[in-house]
Amino acid sequence: MSADLTVVSYRPDPSEWAWAFGGTPAVRRVQPGTVLELYTEDCFGGRVRGVDDLPSQVCEFPYLNPVTGPFHVEGAEPGDTLAVHFVSIEPARDWAVSSTFPHFGALTATHTTAMLHPALEERVWVYEVDRERRTVRYSARRSDFTVEMPLDPMHGTVGVAPGGFEARQTITPDAHGGNMDSPELRAGTTVYFGVNQPGALFALGDGHCRQGEGELCGTAVEAAMDTVVVVDLVKGGGPTLWPRFETDDAIMSTGSTRPLEDAYRISQQDLVTWVAAELRLDELDAYQLLSQAGEAPLANVVDPNYTAVAKLAKTYLPGVQVYDGVHERLRETGRAYLSQR
Amino acid sequence: MSADLTVVSYRPDPSEWAWAFGGTPAVRRVQPGTVLELYTEDCFGGRVRGVDDLPSQVCEFPYLNPVTGPFHVEGAEPGDTLAVHFVSIEPARDWAVSSTFPHFGALTATHTTAMLHPALEERVWVYEVDRERRTVRYSARRSDFTVEMPLDPMHGTVGVAPGGFEARQTITPDAHGGNMDSPELRAGTTVYFGVNQPGALFALGDGHCRQGEGELCGTAVEAAMDTVVVVDLVKGGGPTLWPRFETDDAIMSTGSTRPLEDAYRISQQDLVTWVAAELRLDELDAYQLLSQAGEAPLANVVDPNYTAVAKLAKTYLPGVQVYDGVHERLRETGRAYLSQR
Amino acid sequence: MSADLTVVSYRPDPSEWAWAFGGTPAVRRVQPGTVLELYTEDCFGGRVRGVDDLPSQVCEFPYLNPVTGPFHVEGAEPGDTLAVHFVSIEPARDWAVSSTFPHFGALTATHTTAMLHPALEERVWVYEVDRERRTVRYSARRSDFTVEMPLDPMHGTVGVAPGGFEARQTITPDAHGGNMDSPELRAGTTVYFGVNQPGALFALGDGHCRQGEGELCGTAVEAAMDTVVVVDLVKGGGPTLWPRFETDDAIMSTGSTRPLEDAYRISQQDLVTWVAAELRLDELDAYQLLSQAGEAPLANVVDPNYTAVAKLAKTYLPGVQVYDGVHERLRETGRAYLSQR
Amino acid sequence: MSADLTVVSYRPDPSEWAWAFGGTPAVRRVQPGTVLELYTEDCFGGRVRGVDDLPSQVCEFPYLNPVTGPFHVEGAEPGDTLAVHFVSIEPARDWAVSSTFPHFGALTATHTTAMLHPALEERVWVYEVDRERRTVRYSARRSDFTVEMPLDPMHGTVGVAPGGFEARQTITPDAHGGNMDSPELRAGTTVYFGVNQPGALFALGDGHCRQGEGELCGTAVEAAMDTVVVVDLVKGGGPTLWPRFETDDAIMSTGSTRPLEDAYRISQQDLVTWVAAELRLDELDAYQLLSQAGEAPLANVVDPNYTAVAKLAKTYLPGVQVYDGVHERLRETGRAYLSQR
Repeated sequence: MSADLTVVSYRPDPSEWAWAFGGTPAVRRVQPGTVLELYTEDCFGGRVRGVDDLPSQVCEFPYLNPVTGPFHVEGAEPGDTLAVHFVSIEPARDWAVSSTFPHFGALTATHTTAMLHPALEERVWVYEVDRERRTVRYSARRSDFTVEMPLDPMHGTVGVAPGGFEARQTITPDAHGGNMDSPELRAGTTVYFGVNQPGALFALGDGHCRQGEGELCGTAVEAAMDTVVVVDLVKGGGPTLWPRFETDDAIMSTGSTRPLEDAYRISQQDLVTWVAAELRLDELDAYQLLSQAGEAPLANVVDPNYTAVAKLAKTYLPGVQVYDGVHERLRETGRAYLSQR
Repeated sequence: MSADLTVVSYRPDPSEWAWAFGGTPAVRRVQPGTVLELYTEDCFGGRVRGVDDLPSQVCEFPYLNPVTGPFHVEGAEPGDTLAVHFVSIEPARDWAVSSTFPHFGALTATHTTAMLHPALEERVWVYEVDRERRTVRYSARRSDFTVEMPLDPMHGTVGVAPGGFEARQTITPDAHGGNMDSPELRAGTTVYFGVNQPGALFALGDGHCRQGEGELCGTAVEAAMDTVVVVDLVKGGGPTLWPRFETDDAIMSTGSTRPLEDAYRISQQDLVTWVAAELRLDELDAYQLLSQAGEAPLANVVDPNYTAVAKLAKTYLPGVQVYDGVHERLRETGRAYLSQR
Repeated sequence: MSADLTVVSYRPDPSEWAWAFGGTPAVRRVQPGTVLELYTEDCFGGRVRGVDDLPSQVCEFPYLNPVTGPFHVEGAEPGDTLAVHFVSIEPARDWAVSSTFPHFGALTATHTTAMLHPALEERVWVYEVDRERRTVRYSARRSDFTVEMPLDPMHGTVGVAPGGFEARQTITPDAHGGNMDSPELRAGTTVYFGVNQPGALFALGDGHCRQGEGELCGTAVEAAMDTVVVVDLVKGGGPTLWPRFETDDAIMSTGSTRPLEDAYRISQQDLVTWVAAELRLDELDAYQLLSQAGEAPLANVVDPNYTAVAKLAKTYLPGVQVYDGVHERLRETGRAYLSQR
Repeated sequence: MSADLTVVSYRPDPSEWAWAFGGTPAVRRVQPGTVLELYTEDCFGGRVRGVDDLPSQVCEFPYLNPVTGPFHVEGAEPGDTLAVHFVSIEPARDWAVSSTFPHFGALTATHTTAMLHPALEERVWVYEVDRERRTVRYSARRSDFTVEMPLDPMHGTVGVAPGGFEARQTITPDAHGGNMDSPELRAGTTVYFGVNQPGALFALGDGHCRQGEGELCGTAVEAAMDTVVVVDLVKGGGPTLWPRFETDDAIMSTGSTRPLEDAYRISQQDLVTWVAAELRLDELDAYQLLSQAGEAPLANVVDPNYTAVAKLAKTYLPGVQVYDGVHERLRETGRAYLSQR
């Protein structure tokens, strides 16, 4: 490994898992620019290993959705922006699982969309993961139907400690990030968070081999992951009010709340004001530009808050480099790391 | 033109425009299999032709969003499914317009999300349409910024007469179709409607040169269109409860209501049950399949009902041909028509 | 009967029932000031007469929720306000019914809050109506529990023809009124509607012996009613955008849409602007007044649109007489009618 | 004071105020049965004392809505239910204040219902509080209008430490209670919370001299309060999932989430199951009973979660005594305290 890169490897013992953003001491302190090689366990804490392992029986509330971290990033102060770049996200096992879960999901009565229906059947699906061919295999439980899907690994949960004296369960997405469950959080993406607490205290988990838009039944193709990220800081500048994403091709804003139209509104309003600032456009002119060129890839419609993403291709942003180009630099760091591995 | 194709051309006089689905007599009676060459005026009735033509001044409520039709399809009876295949959608002029409109749009107080704010500024943007290069050009109103976008023509409004003694303004999407504002309604797509009234009475309008997901400000790149469709009937079979789309690559269900999560639920529940029936899957197995493989391209978050689309690639539907293959046949009819034109 | 009162009695034959607001010809033409003695059948068309008459079996969609009317009020023009004062609402039979209905109600998956649950059990409850003692008696179906409740008759459905070329099923409340299902619509209340079509074309039905706030399971204590109303016109003046109510003690605005917070917003925004106009208050001052003194009695959280009511006691409106005092005059007409009967 | 009553008086220094439920050490340990004489500061920390004290200028986020506590109740364990009975709630000063606040309230764009509107004007209203005559006086800011309203003191915020490793800002209502802003929380009411942490750790604040249903503009008639409560424990029994209220006349369930229909659903579903258990009714029979006899007094439609209340008069609950009669006992303790004072 080159001397240019500071690499920290960390594989938590189950006793070190965190269950909330906020209220949890840092497991490591790292400098901005550090490459982190991390292991994350799946949302079930690895306890669902076959179709007979019903989550509601093998898992114990609130010990759901463990995250790896939090990491204290040296020098991060409230008002700064933390950049976390995903270098690689690789399934750690050759299988993954999904399930229904009682009163959780988009097409079932839940604890908030409360009704008098008994829960839908709890059922587990086990996926074969073929890391060479980059596929996962779905198999129906009540018939012989089976089909392959592309492997497209992502992290459902990544965030920082919230502000305002809060601590939030890892299952809840909000302004601090958390369980956004956006398929956009794949290798190659940089995610930006406003820093609320000294050190930012970021953590991540809930790896998915792939996920449909909305995460319909409430769980994706859940997997333990070997993940590499690079972290960096953008000091000062305008505050980052909601998590933002950047890829080589697009910038994105997010919003997490209910009802879903409000999540859409938050994400779009953030992107309108961001684009207006970057292109020195009047706000209504940016509003119009996004009305015709914007995308809105849904993240989740199942978690305690729903998450919407507003996305604009960089082709509409000629000459613009957001956050002082930190994405390009972290992308380069990631490439350097991968070439040396 | 080949004798094999029945082609009807129709360009309505403004006095023939319809303003509602239902309650309007048919302008033509057509046989299943007919190719229709239609002209549709833009959502402003063609009255917004420059930046000084403010819609709230040049248009008069409720004379908004005129549609061409309705067409009585011979033999269509309640319980049947009407198939409308878009052969081509071409802008009729070398310009198009968009605008904000008082108290309409996703990021403004509206008549339903009622607040005490005065309306945002009403502003018009004129787009240059380059039919050769397949682009439209956006120009900011308060600065010199300008950028090209791909031309991607679609119809915002298409539907049939509703059931239950109802007539609905053309601006409202619901189970009968209407102003769904989905970018998926482009050339090459077949849309399916449950028939509620004898003759189905379908109509269409509200052409867009392109549109962002959600139609953020409430109006797309609005344009008059020269549009060719082929219509056909699927007699009997299961009822089509909500509009469905089919392309060469995917099948889609829609839902139009508020809040947006309920539009999402309708579309996904319809697709789950549709896929379960086609693949002979148990419903929970179909729910799981869509949870990982499904897409959810947002249509509109601005109209009286919001519209969500649930989409599954045909790669996940090996050997399946929906609606007896009518899409493939209409696709072929369309190709024959285009090759003869 | 005094020569001063014009009284029209009308008991529709089932063939005369209307199933929509709009698109239906008037059954009678009446002058403003007319007292109407009407019979309205219950929401099931009188077909549910015992616990074995399951609504989904004895009723046929869309023949649900018949209304009596519409009545053409001479001289009513768009822009006017129609006043309908309830003089008396009396159950026509000594029994009434309620039921669950498949996929309808607040605590069940519905066609819009679509899920994968099978419908809850369909069950009918028959209530004894004691018109002397002014009570109804509830009896549990699966145990011996029984309890009396006060009789508090009201109409769930009352409205006028909508504007914008629309016709709406009687089950849907919107700006034209319709199935608002507010317990405030009892004898002594005047309801105001903006007139959209010449003659206003008002109709009413869906009598309830009583109803809880929100109409939780989707049906109230449903009953045929002998109802007396007086109708009048308020020519010109500001438009009445949403139905408003007035009693001797309070004024009320309504809003009907989804999600429920938007229905609340509509009703409150209408009442803020109404109160500001009547008290010559700045809008923010009226906003503050309502924030502390306003009530928000929920109407329905089960129909295709939810209905919220915003209410202010007249003690906060010293010296104010809304709509030129038409309520007081109609109240007087009602008293005169009752004293002469 | 009688030896029978244990009375603890506590007036926090501003440095002792708490800003969150959870993550805050107890200020006192008290035995079940203790009478607590407490002082609570208003939601502005007492900093808004005149019309020129704009909250956004004199208050500093996140130091909003201080609460007094938390109190560790000896013996409270997860699974128990904490009962807090309000003996008296008296304004501590002869004035109170209300205000609009930028991007907060039901009729304004907010940070979650995000839009492009600038904030409505921030304005403060000062109310005269007449503790003898039991009134508060509203005075318009832009005209001479003034009117008295009944004094009806209540606490907007009361709750316990949440479960699941969470800490929540005092402004947010959820399953742990918090800023429910229900006018039902007046003297004479007992509120029940499920215990999540040893000691329960309850706290309260945000006194209101009165409040409209929904708390339309986001703030009530805000006041410092001298409040007396009695606390007690119900060991074991069924879990209390959401806060419940009891008065001499009614029992109530609450739900706090978005959209508002889901808050309604939570509260009604909890009350249906509660009533079914108490009356030994089948769930559908309880659903029907509440559909006709239930009330739904709205609490808030402005906070990060909206709060709905489901209410049933005790006349419908013959022979029922909930939570082993703890309300009656605490009511007696309160009367004893008041008679001895």
